[in-house]
Amino acid sequence: MSLTSEAIRLAQARLAPYMRRTPVITSRAINACCGARVHFKCENLQHVGAFKFRGAMNALLQLGEDERRRGVVTHSSGNHGQALAKAARILGVPAWVVMPRTAAAIKRDATEGYGATVVACEPTLADRESTVQRLVDSQGLTLIHPFNDWRVIAGQGTAALEFFDQVNGEPLDILLTPCGGGGLLAGSALAASSRSPTTKVVGVEPANADDARRSLAAGQIMPSGDPATIADGLRTSLGEKTFSIIQERVHSIVSATEAEIVAAMRFFWERTKLIIEPSAAVPVAALFNGQLSLEGKNVGVILSGGNVDVEPFFSHLASRWLVPNAAK
Amino acid sequence: MSLTSEAIRLAQARLAPYMRRTPVITSRAINACCGARVHFKCENLQHVGAFKFRGAMNALLQLGEDERRRGVVTHSSGNHGQALAKAARILGVPAWVVMPRTAAAIKRDATEGYGATVVACEPTLADRESTVQRLVDSQGLTLIHPFNDWRVIAGQGTAALEFFDQVNGEPLDILLTPCGGGGLLAGSALAASSRSPTTKVVGVEPANADDARRSLAAGQIMPSGDPATIADGLRTSLGEKTFSIIQERVHSIVSATEAEIVAAMRFFWERTKLIIEPSAAVPVAALFNGQLSLEGKNVGVILSGGNVDVEPFFSHLASRWLVPNAAK
Repeated sequence: MSLTSEAIRLAQARLAPYMRRTPVITSRAINACCGARVHFKCENLQHVGAFKFRGAMNALLQLGEDERRRGVVTHSSGNHGQALAKAARILGVPAWVVMPRTAAAIKRDATEGYGATVVACEPTLADRESTVQRLVDSQGLTLIHPFNDWRVIAGQGTAALEFFDQVNGEPLDILLTPCGGGGLLAGSALAASSRSPTTKVVGVEPANADDARRSLAAGQIMPSGDPATIADGLRTSLGEKTFSIIQERVHSIVSATEAEIVAAMRFFWERTKLIIEPSAAVPVAALFNGQLSLEGKNVGVILSGGNVDVEPFFSHLASRWLVPNAAK
Repeated sequence: MSLTSEAIRLAQARLAPYMRRTPVITSRAINACCGARVHFKCENLQHVGAFKFRGAMNALLQLGEDERRRGVVTHSSGNHGQALAKAARILGVPAWVVMPRTAAAIKRDATEGYGATVVACEPTLADRESTVQRLVDSQGLTLIHPFNDWRVIAGQGTAALEFFDQVNGEPLDILLTPCGGGGLLAGSALAASSRSPTTKVVGVEPANADDARRSLAAGQIMPSGDPATIADGLRTSLGEKTFSIIQERVHSIVSATEAEIVAAMRFFWERTKLIIEPSAAVPVAALFNGQLSLEGKNVGVILSGGNVDVEPFFSHLASRWLVPNAAK
């Protein structure tokens, strides 16, 4: 079995009542810097602050009555966990999210805030998987994988489908998406194949987590171990479902260094006043680092999310302004 | 002489080719927190990241040929200086901006980046005024005051006029704007008086810089000395032109503490993914601090700007991720 572009169109119809139609923005400063016309699809403004809500909701909406009643489980300390929690609450489905006990309190709190039960595991792949399996076996929960799931991939593809509609007058020459597990990239490539076949879909990954490039070169999945990158949403490696679609439909994979990611994120914040998270800054960095030939092109970028812990900024402000007798 | 609401309509027509029609956004999380329907007018997305571009451009567009040729001058280390610099460049008018020599390098650079000549003065009111006067006398420059100028006030009022159009189906019960020198507040109140007369226009100022409240109570301008507030755009006090309009047309003045301002700014960033500066967070804070009765109301807030120095955040990220061998 694989996935057809028809599945993405069906997902779009299924998801319509639940999604925000996120805006598409442009920035003259960014256009000037890369000599292209760049359109940004603001999935950082999607519910839960990330495109992940699309895939999670699309999976939940296809569960049978029994599966819904028993509940769902996933492993994610990031946006997918929050997305599944929120989608499950909207549909009245019980949800469990397995997270390493080392996950930041802010992430546990956010996931619980959306109504899911957080289950702590040891910070190892083995314990994570056995913890999930135990919940599946003992409670009959349905696993909703963060990316290696056809329903999730189809849901993520609806962001690109909507994007193509929004720039209808001016078809995209290139569409850039970040690539971690590959759900957004695979879904976008599939959406393009029928809706905008002249668009080259390009995945961008951190140079420190370049498993997609290596996997395509090797013709098989070459996972990254435990990559050190600020782009925390992109530390995972491709799964066999996303790999098969990416191998067939993605034009190329490029990368960005850590310094390029941080610089792109800052430039984007300063020029657009929109908060994007490091993973979303990865394709923005690829606009500037010369790996792509963009001159005169019409370029699309999916901004995957806006969930950043701004605590360091506000603790700086507070120390400057809220401490009695602080230097003014 | 005073200002009529007709002047604001004329300014709107005059400015139309130069302004962004900034979006109006809403947030369910914020509505839920204050029990009201709140609309935010995003002047943080205006050119130069602040509503100040409206007033500066409106003043420049009314100069005679001779005045344009000789050039303009102002004193501002903040958004008005940048706004005047950018407006002047667009119109081919030479511009000088007087700033205390202690102003942050980032502000000097931004103003020079827009093409103005920055002139340093001592960080005292007396030296600032004498430096401006010297430029006026020696070069025949026209002073464009940051707020105590009818053309500037009329320009700022166009933000509210546009806002009323954008929420046309649902007239605002209350419109909140920050209040520093009072240009935005006075312009908004005048715009409301003819276009949306049932709207109560309320100014919000830092509790640490509450000259507007004190001035209205006293019936005369009661300036703040050198107020210590994070809301750097609101440290100035009313001028006689803004005071006269505010006295006549503003419903009331409320305030926010420093802690409330920082908390509101953070909440806004986290929930909307939109960057607002501390001065813009002041009216947001007034949504939550109980000084206003908002339950069930239709509320408008003008987000005055988005120019924040994000250096502390990115230097934290860089120290965490870009230092060789840093803890990962």
